[in-house]
Amino acid sequence: MHFMTALGAAWQQRNSLLCVGLDPDPAKFPAHLQGRPDAILAFCSAIVDATADLVCCFKPQIAYFAAHRAEDQLEALIEHIHARHPGTPVVLDAKRGDIGSTAEQYAVEAFERYKADAITVNPYMGRDSVDPYLAYPDKGVILLCRTSNPGGSDLQFLDVGGLKLYEHVARLVAQDWNASGNCGLVVGATFPAEIARVRELTGDMPLLVPGIGAQGGDVAATLAAGRTAAGTGLMINSSRAILYAGKGEDFADAARQAAIDTRDAINAHR
Amino acid sequence: MHFMTALGAAWQQRNSLLCVGLDPDPAKFPAHLQGRPDAILAFCSAIVDATADLVCCFKPQIAYFAAHRAEDQLEALIEHIHARHPGTPVVLDAKRGDIGSTAEQYAVEAFERYKADAITVNPYMGRDSVDPYLAYPDKGVILLCRTSNPGGSDLQFLDVGGLKLYEHVARLVAQDWNASGNCGLVVGATFPAEIARVRELTGDMPLLVPGIGAQGGDVAATLAAGRTAAGTGLMINSSRAILYAGKGEDFADAARQAAIDTRDAINAHR
Repeated sequence: MHFMTALGAAWQQRNSLLCVGLDPDPAKFPAHLQGRPDAILAFCSAIVDATADLVCCFKPQIAYFAAHRAEDQLEALIEHIHARHPGTPVVLDAKRGDIGSTAEQYAVEAFERYKADAITVNPYMGRDSVDPYLAYPDKGVILLCRTSNPGGSDLQFLDVGGLKLYEHVARLVAQDWNASGNCGLVVGATFPAEIARVRELTGDMPLLVPGIGAQGGDVAATLAAGRTAAGTGLMINSSRAILYAGKGEDFADAARQAAIDTRDAINAHR
Repeated sequence: MHFMTALGAAWQQRNSLLCVGLDPDPAKFPAHLQGRPDAILAFCSAIVDATADLVCCFKPQIAYFAAHRAEDQLEALIEHIHARHPGTPVVLDAKRGDIGSTAEQYAVEAFERYKADAITVNPYMGRDSVDPYLAYPDKGVILLCRTSNPGGSDLQFLDVGGLKLYEHVARLVAQDWNASGNCGLVVGATFPAEIARVRELTGDMPLLVPGIGAQGGDVAATLAAGRTAAGTGLMINSSRAILYAGKGEDFADAARQAAIDTRDAINAHR
């Protein structure tokens, strides 16, 4: 199924704009999982099983797997999501960016090896560095636009001919790179006015919004700025606030409750 | 040893500005390696052993390993370089870029897991996305500046207050991010005038220059534009033209000859 179709269906059927970010940090795992060779998979699978009916997508962050030599557990995790929770899109948060021949390799990694439904990509190297991902007709390609970190302004807020660089990227993606309708953008929740500006420039393009919860973004302002007329258009990511809501053997129950609370807080403003 | 110290020593002792890029594509391997489970490691190790005395550094491109589930072979390859060819810096070409907490994971991946001496990083997310790499005092951090692909101009050539974006990045890195003296920049060989401009903005900062050989850049123009007063300052990368110089069992000999020819062509213009 096309990523955009699956995402649209998940928004409707699960009545949720929540994306749970899977950033597994073994140092924060409950004691009973510590030291297990498959601790990352066990932890993430439990989170996934406890929250899948509450989310519009999952977003594993590949750095957390790679730092722990856990590529095999990432493969198994995504396979688990597809098998147990069909119709739940998986966005591989990898923020890749390289010349075409190398991007082809990254696209194989994301879409053929890991079987992700979408990938995050860095736009700095331009159109031909993005084409190899766009060449997969059923996959989503979510470009960095305005990021939620303090240094995000260093380049993204530069003035380029009357637009900020992030606005230029939003317009470039909306008017050119999105010819096949499979692009999205990353826009941080810490800047609601800029979410509104990106929404204005991109029509109904899906926006992946990190930065609520641990990073301090405001849910009401994010929704007001970014929701589409249909009350969707957003993948609002929360990672740490859900993954580490509990510290004991009932961590998955605590994560489920945190996900319910976050989903409902989002829906209160749709 | 500090990456910059090792690089400086390699430039002098080996009289070479050549960086051999390790982009292993199994479809292009000689027949006798096809189908071996460790074909990537066997191929790359043979290239490394045949060229180590001719290079100032090696640059494995992680995408080519990740696409083939060959992270273990990348680990073994870098271990092989450090063990057999000590003093030869390894630049992990990964072009990572993410918020600080995630960048910390990528830094662990590059420097602790793979034991690379330097990494390439994308500047789009700004200073705090680069700090976790800079926090490793002995490691090199090589920021994308002006890339050699056609779409490189899409963002990098935008005018930001009288500078092109790539010039702004060069100045930002030289004046701010490089406080500890461990930064470098990626500047493509396809744009010699822009190499000259980056050299002007960055003093003696090491520049990693892809794009000669398969991508068509001119060696004489690259040297004239980018060499420092000492006749160094450049890591001039060649990947495919060296890796696939031969197609038979003597592929490593052919690679050695191609590396000698490239090194000498570079040295003719120093």
